[in-house]
Amino acid sequence: MRTQVAIIGSGPSGLLLGQLLSEAGIDNVILDRVSKEYILGRVRAGVLEEGTVELLDKAKAGARMHAEGLPHDGFSLAFDGRDHRIDLAKLTGGKRVMVYGQTEVTRDLMDCREAGGALTIYDASKVQLHGFETASPSVSYEKDGTTHRLDCDFIAGCDGFHGASRKAVPPDAIKIFEKIYPFGWLGVLADVAPVSHELVYANHPRGFALCSMRSETRSRYYLQCPLDEKIEDWSDDRFWDELRRRLPVHHAQALLTAPSFEKSIAPLRSFVAEPMRFGTLFLVGDAAHIVPPTGAKGLNLAASDVHYLFNGLREHFSDHSDAGLDTYSEKALARAWKAVRFSWWMTTMMHRFPGTGDFDQKIQEAELDYLTHSQAASTALAENYVGLPY
Amino acid sequence: MRTQVAIIGSGPSGLLLGQLLSEAGIDNVILDRVSKEYILGRVRAGVLEEGTVELLDKAKAGARMHAEGLPHDGFSLAFDGRDHRIDLAKLTGGKRVMVYGQTEVTRDLMDCREAGGALTIYDASKVQLHGFETASPSVSYEKDGTTHRLDCDFIAGCDGFHGASRKAVPPDAIKIFEKIYPFGWLGVLADVAPVSHELVYANHPRGFALCSMRSETRSRYYLQCPLDEKIEDWSDDRFWDELRRRLPVHHAQALLTAPSFEKSIAPLRSFVAEPMRFGTLFLVGDAAHIVPPTGAKGLNLAASDVHYLFNGLREHFSDHSDAGLDTYSEKALARAWKAVRFSWWMTTMMHRFPGTGDFDQKIQEAELDYLTHSQAASTALAENYVGLPY
Repeated sequence: MRTQVAIIGSGPSGLLLGQLLSEAGIDNVILDRVSKEYILGRVRAGVLEEGTVELLDKAKAGARMHAEGLPHDGFSLAFDGRDHRIDLAKLTGGKRVMVYGQTEVTRDLMDCREAGGALTIYDASKVQLHGFETASPSVSYEKDGTTHRLDCDFIAGCDGFHGASRKAVPPDAIKIFEKIYPFGWLGVLADVAPVSHELVYANHPRGFALCSMRSETRSRYYLQCPLDEKIEDWSDDRFWDELRRRLPVHHAQALLTAPSFEKSIAPLRSFVAEPMRFGTLFLVGDAAHIVPPTGAKGLNLAASDVHYLFNGLREHFSDHSDAGLDTYSEKALARAWKAVRFSWWMTTMMHRFPGTGDFDQKIQEAELDYLTHSQAASTALAENYVGLPY
Repeated sequence: MRTQVAIIGSGPSGLLLGQLLSEAGIDNVILDRVSKEYILGRVRAGVLEEGTVELLDKAKAGARMHAEGLPHDGFSLAFDGRDHRIDLAKLTGGKRVMVYGQTEVTRDLMDCREAGGALTIYDASKVQLHGFETASPSVSYEKDGTTHRLDCDFIAGCDGFHGASRKAVPPDAIKIFEKIYPFGWLGVLADVAPVSHELVYANHPRGFALCSMRSETRSRYYLQCPLDEKIEDWSDDRFWDELRRRLPVHHAQALLTAPSFEKSIAPLRSFVAEPMRFGTLFLVGDAAHIVPPTGAKGLNLAASDVHYLFNGLREHFSDHSDAGLDTYSEKALARAWKAVRFSWWMTTMMHRFPGTGDFDQKIQEAELDYLTHSQAASTALAENYVGLPY
């Protein structure tokens, strides 16, 4: 089998790239080692930058997002017992974010792809990348007991942090930058109205908390917890009690609870692999970089990678110019590092770090105090949160 | 002997407070354990915020500063081989800083004090504070072999980090916040034109460097160095060679050198003592807080303490209101913590920290890149550098 672009990974970045390519008349095939149902069962982020929204529109996959998503003009930083609102729209000249679950984005893109008839091969095991140092790369995989081979012009590695794409690169050709944070996020999903119509990021002596949502009837709440915490030690009651303690009292009193239907602990990591291009292989999204979820940059960063790569591929196939592909790694990394810095900064400012002293705590308080009282500092936060320009 | 305000310390904060009080008709006496000549021989900072300039004018001690000081509209952040100018005036609506050495400020204030006939007692040894938990405090000291006693209504502790004032407070009445940085600044003074007419703060893989000046013919240069570095290992030649390596090439090539006439290594420390008032004793400036010199906040923070304390004392003696004195500690600490945060942030962003890895280095680069390309982030830097409002 032959295609122009082999896309490894049927998450939102692979699907978005595939959809943009298909719309531009560029043939592509998506491979994923798991099933469609498995992918749609994963719980992920849910705050989209305007650039991500525009890309979904460009891919003609934005209709349900506009109908069901929740545009947010601001969010709250809670500390010292009070909410301090960051007015995104006012600070950025009208920009906003869209609250719409990554799972829904994935579903919409899958629906579009199926409607357009483009090929996705699920349950493709033992995916291997070949010859990407040449102009004739290929991908092999096993399906139904048979080994298959997909020849292509380019490979897009959209298969996430643990995927085969980055691992196929010789270790001496890649440089890794990494930071592991000394805590995790204990997350709960529950079908109950969110405590506030906007997100609340809370800095509290007991640890960070985040009140988020997927819709007006589905809440997503998080608590900072030690890395060795056991999920079975956290009953719903204990979770709600601890969340109440970390929120300003008006939120704690207004908090509605319901049985959780998802509860998990995720570690927090910053990770960047450089470069993001190796011959005819391009790494996209989590395959190349991971950010801690504070600031909601992961999916949006994958979308901006897709933007740069799609433009490069379109120029290659339509305009016979490789200028876009040749600058892909540099452009994507420049934007990625800005988001990595922002996510690191927001994580550092909002969490309790074990072993740090009173000075660091006071610095956090001084930073939050300055941030919420300075127009310039609030604007810097807001422009990063809504997304820096591509 | 009796006065209204006993001021301990004849550095710029004690002298500025004394001058403001004298201008307002409030009697004060300054005590210092060392001589006038010793104080004027100390090498200190030299960048004044507009608020500090205004206070010196209010104290009628600003004439020579306006004649000889150098108003600066901006400075450079040097990294990645290039200068990136921060246009203070443009970013802050016309604000600027004044480059004028602290030693000159001290000399001007001493001259004013002598002209006005207010009393300063130099070489006052064994200074001790008494009864500041009461409304009748006093200060005792030895001079010329005799013990003297100064009765007063209030004591202003302007005697710096190592002075007697803060040490007189019972340890359980005071809370200390402190951070020691794992490096020092090796500083050189030389009578040679500065390499640039504005300050240059350089982030370099070999460590931080700062090109500063005291006048158009006197340069002040600094290099980040390990804390255990020995001054005798640093010949002038070695210093100039190392400085050239850390600067963008156009500065390195333009650097003029001359024999240094002062060379020293200073540790970097963040320190805050809370509260800043104990009965009738008020701590001012370095007696209450120390910041690393990155960002030039030390003297300016002392000046804003003086502003708050002078207003409180004036209200007490003129208006018979203690409102200003009662809020002194809170107001001074709120502004101090903002400057402590800023100095910590700028120090963290500009220095190499031993033992940190590639990730932290890239975060510094990403932060500098973002900072110099975002109007909002540049403005946040600029508004802190010129001084947040009192």
